[in-house]
Amino acid sequence: MALRVGVIGGGQLARMMIAPAVELGLELQVLAEADGMSAQLAASAVGDYRDLEAVRAFAADVDVITFDHEHVPQEILRALVADGVVVHPGPDALQFAQDKLVMRAKLQELDVPQPDWAAVRTADELQVFLDAHHGAGVVKTPRGGYDGKGVRVVRSAAEAQDWLDDLAAADALLVEELVPFVRELAQQVARRPSGQIVAYPVVETVQRDGVCAEVIAPAPAASERLSQVAEGIGRRIAEGLGVTGMLAVELFETDDDRILVNELAMRPHNSGHWSQDGAVTGQFEQHLRAVADLPLGSPAPRAPWSVMVNILGGPQSGALGERFDGAMAEYPAAKIHTYGKEPRPGRKVGHVNVASDDLDDAVYIARAAAAHFL
Amino acid sequence: MALRVGVIGGGQLARMMIAPAVELGLELQVLAEADGMSAQLAASAVGDYRDLEAVRAFAADVDVITFDHEHVPQEILRALVADGVVVHPGPDALQFAQDKLVMRAKLQELDVPQPDWAAVRTADELQVFLDAHHGAGVVKTPRGGYDGKGVRVVRSAAEAQDWLDDLAAADALLVEELVPFVRELAQQVARRPSGQIVAYPVVETVQRDGVCAEVIAPAPAASERLSQVAEGIGRRIAEGLGVTGMLAVELFETDDDRILVNELAMRPHNSGHWSQDGAVTGQFEQHLRAVADLPLGSPAPRAPWSVMVNILGGPQSGALGERFDGAMAEYPAAKIHTYGKEPRPGRKVGHVNVASDDLDDAVYIARAAAAHFL
Repeated sequence: MALRVGVIGGGQLARMMIAPAVELGLELQVLAEADGMSAQLAASAVGDYRDLEAVRAFAADVDVITFDHEHVPQEILRALVADGVVVHPGPDALQFAQDKLVMRAKLQELDVPQPDWAAVRTADELQVFLDAHHGAGVVKTPRGGYDGKGVRVVRSAAEAQDWLDDLAAADALLVEELVPFVRELAQQVARRPSGQIVAYPVVETVQRDGVCAEVIAPAPAASERLSQVAEGIGRRIAEGLGVTGMLAVELFETDDDRILVNELAMRPHNSGHWSQDGAVTGQFEQHLRAVADLPLGSPAPRAPWSVMVNILGGPQSGALGERFDGAMAEYPAAKIHTYGKEPRPGRKVGHVNVASDDLDDAVYIARAAAAHFL
Repeated sequence: MALRVGVIGGGQLARMMIAPAVELGLELQVLAEADGMSAQLAASAVGDYRDLEAVRAFAADVDVITFDHEHVPQEILRALVADGVVVHPGPDALQFAQDKLVMRAKLQELDVPQPDWAAVRTADELQVFLDAHHGAGVVKTPRGGYDGKGVRVVRSAAEAQDWLDDLAAADALLVEELVPFVRELAQQVARRPSGQIVAYPVVETVQRDGVCAEVIAPAPAASERLSQVAEGIGRRIAEGLGVTGMLAVELFETDDDRILVNELAMRPHNSGHWSQDGAVTGQFEQHLRAVADLPLGSPAPRAPWSVMVNILGGPQSGALGERFDGAMAEYPAAKIHTYGKEPRPGRKVGHVNVASDDLDDAVYIARAAAAHFL
């Protein structure tokens, strides 16, 4: 009987697990939030991931539970584990992706390089931190943020007053120094429950309005040292936090040649979409292998350069598929991936991958092909 | 609304269309022969492809009909076309893949190089052909054969007497000269209804017991001339027969440096499985693009060499997935594709693709990884 992998959440990350699951003959089942979600084809149940009984019923029919997102509450994850359900990544690891304060404290304990940070509960505490860091900082709500939401650059405590007012008694905000970075990088590693780790090449990511817009793999002009440091950080975090499955570590590269950890994601990640067409083992296959505790695949690039450009928003009118003619006719080497989502301003509705011997070519083709869908 | 592609037949070729359909956001629907077929995940109906009403009901909900196999009867195909259903490849093209005598006559008309052949109805006619061809020939039933079935090498007419006895009044057997080939090749092209054609590199195929065992892409030591001749044959047949979708042309390379057409297939074909991992556009994506009349993707190889080795039969006991550990642990660069079929002697249950800069490496790894599943 085929191994059954259950994915909680029916977004595009679950959707993109379908292709490698079919090829490997793994039975993918998805607990979708609603009908018509991105991963519809594999949706075997519709239910609320915050509803223990719905999640329990879904988990009863699979061999391992994994995730499209990191929002499943700890109490539900721990109830599943208590039921004997295999969950990857498990709640002990996922807490570090769910709460940025818990993550910062853990990375500090692991001696992983990161921005200066503090937990602040009052305007005074925040102002003290800002005063000590050139009068600026990045304030984050520790929980629930993504794609730039829950993140604000402030130059005075007053600019975060609304968030401070909303804090529950026990809660705190995270404030981080405003890092003078020259670019953003991402390091992905996969880790099996049995401990095997493989590392992808470190990539450069370009964000616009807090959302990933482009990725170049490997990061251009990355020195051997930088690549090794990034990989070492990825490995240390995967091991130190007990991550199983794919881990993405978002990094700042500073003007004084340091690498600092910005964010973590414990699932396939936008910074790794290039690997679907640019690596021997794409991140979605790798995640399935890792959570099923199968030996990991080679993360080696298939081409000197791979570029991923997100399709953000989609066409003003009509479906994405109506733009295939132009994009495919002009760019036969572009790999188009769509998410089956309705176009909406700023929404991630697809992406284009291009692998090439020539970086400029790959960037040009990926951008131009993606632009056909806007 | 997503374009809906309906596939008649639920075998592994339909199954392997699922992955690219998901990524492109095409809605794949499969008319499967039974529950639990290889393409189960996309099976939207179960029915007999020889039952006009079943096929008609299936066709009513899709934008284009295509195929997992070539066995749908002409009268059903023509009824669909009369209904206004878009069918690719259409009945006029498919007849040449359905009847080897019709195919031979057409290739002769197109002046495509092929073995000497004749239609024979009696032992005398067969013996005359054998006597004129060094006393040997390959007798084929014109319809319904595949994977070596319906094909027999004979050295006397008596050896085909049972088939001659079974002939209906209007029928004939095909007899072909026994070609002294040095190896077998395959040329794949894709053609859109609008006429655009792209050609894959000519590949070498190795058959065992009439079944494809291995494929090397491109064919080793293929001269520029040979590659051009093979591509020219593929293009001439695709245009001459009005093929839409993928066309595979099985070829003999002779010891006197000729290329002769052996068989045709108008669908994705075993000789093209390497392209899933070895070409910019895999044959399953290409077939979907072609039958949906979308611009074709680049057929360029991603690596100097790609090798495909079939998993024939599968393990003596247990499921294919139980062999993942050994194969994946030893060969992290091997791409394993499984068909969700029960192991059975000689049955195609999966294949392994390996792409590499080094041909010997690729052959070794693909064979060794595939052997883990036996």
